[in-house]
Amino acid sequence: MAQQRTPGKAVGLPAATVERLPIYLRALTEFKSRGVEVISSEELAEAVNVTSAQLRKDLSHLGGHGTRGVGYDVAVLIQALSATLGVDKQWPIVIVGCGNLGMSLAKYAGFTNRGFKISALFDSAPEIIGKVVEISEGQKIFIKDVAGLSTFIRENNIQIAVITTPAPAAQSVCDTLVNAGIYSIMTFAPVTLTVPSGVDVRQIDLASELQILTFHEQTKANEVIAI
Amino acid sequence: MAQQRTPGKAVGLPAATVERLPIYLRALTEFKSRGVEVISSEELAEAVNVTSAQLRKDLSHLGGHGTRGVGYDVAVLIQALSATLGVDKQWPIVIVGCGNLGMSLAKYAGFTNRGFKISALFDSAPEIIGKVVEISEGQKIFIKDVAGLSTFIRENNIQIAVITTPAPAAQSVCDTLVNAGIYSIMTFAPVTLTVPSGVDVRQIDLASELQILTFHEQTKANEVIAI
Repeated sequence: MAQQRTPGKAVGLPAATVERLPIYLRALTEFKSRGVEVISSEELAEAVNVTSAQLRKDLSHLGGHGTRGVGYDVAVLIQALSATLGVDKQWPIVIVGCGNLGMSLAKYAGFTNRGFKISALFDSAPEIIGKVVEISEGQKIFIKDVAGLSTFIRENNIQIAVITTPAPAAQSVCDTLVNAGIYSIMTFAPVTLTVPSGVDVRQIDLASELQILTFHEQTKANEVIAI
Repeated sequence: MAQQRTPGKAVGLPAATVERLPIYLRALTEFKSRGVEVISSEELAEAVNVTSAQLRKDLSHLGGHGTRGVGYDVAVLIQALSATLGVDKQWPIVIVGCGNLGMSLAKYAGFTNRGFKISALFDSAPEIIGKVVEISEGQKIFIKDVAGLSTFIRENNIQIAVITTPAPAAQSVCDTLVNAGIYSIMTFAPVTLTVPSGVDVRQIDLASELQILTFHEQTKANEVIAI
């Protein structure tokens, strides 16, 4: 789903490893909340549906945090993963497009404890600009005019944006974001965005995801299966 | 993001190709709506950010639909892709979990013209069971009690389900779905689901997607970049 950044320097982690790190972090946080202090690679691997060999290889990129025969210190590994992913601090994000999907993301409780806070919401429709949204209990923000998007991003040093506009508006919003200095974009608009090299786009196309499932349903009957 | 089905027969399309087919179909549908009848592999490849070599290779799995020096007949290729993905018909889907995210998916207009219709919504909270939801203009359905989920799936021959419950409820809902005969699940719950071999799960973990972006932001400063 990702359009890969053109690597400036070919140093670092394989993209597939990067995609798994948030899953490891999520599982470890869950183990910690249940009081687990040390975990074996087998236990952690099983919890996230990868092989323990894959897990050990992925985590070896972070430096040696495991002890053979003992396992990983959960708190230490959480700290290492959080630092690697950059979520040992909170990132302010903006959401552009305040339809049903944008509103549900604005209220999504799962962002707050995983490194993100909603900094502002933007839309272009006069009838909803200025509307007050309760994004969490007692925390209200109002929907801003998209005309002020660039200024807001620059003044508040925003680095990550989410596009939840209809498809026809997405490229124009994307251009505005990139021109204002955003290099990391998550988009739900069902259209391929064109961005300069160096800008990361994570596209979540909900109908495409479902169509991958129907492919499998469809091919079951034909006994033609993805390999 | 996918947990791959254990292949019964190793015949068919590479999983990475399957993931791109919905994107090709989406782009072709857009070209068709603008009156384009024939398209070159270069034009189509550019519109979806893949190389034309990759595009031709992917489409070659569907049989020869292109003509060298002429290109692809847009309508013919749309039909071939729709048939391969199984979206030349409409699939009824159920959504389990009627919080903000579930409600926004229920109202998401992008499903209808891409092969899906919302058949039913389920929740376990007494205060919202029975509530009427307008999922599209003039089309209202009411939220059903999750206690009736299995029966509904069996009686209506549902094959695809979406889980938008909080994390703690997701595995139990997943088990109910699988026991009722569902083999294709899209889940937004931030937890790894355990399913029997043969069940496809597409997980969309929104905070994990954002954390992949922060990894890149974070490492920019350090000049360590995913390869």
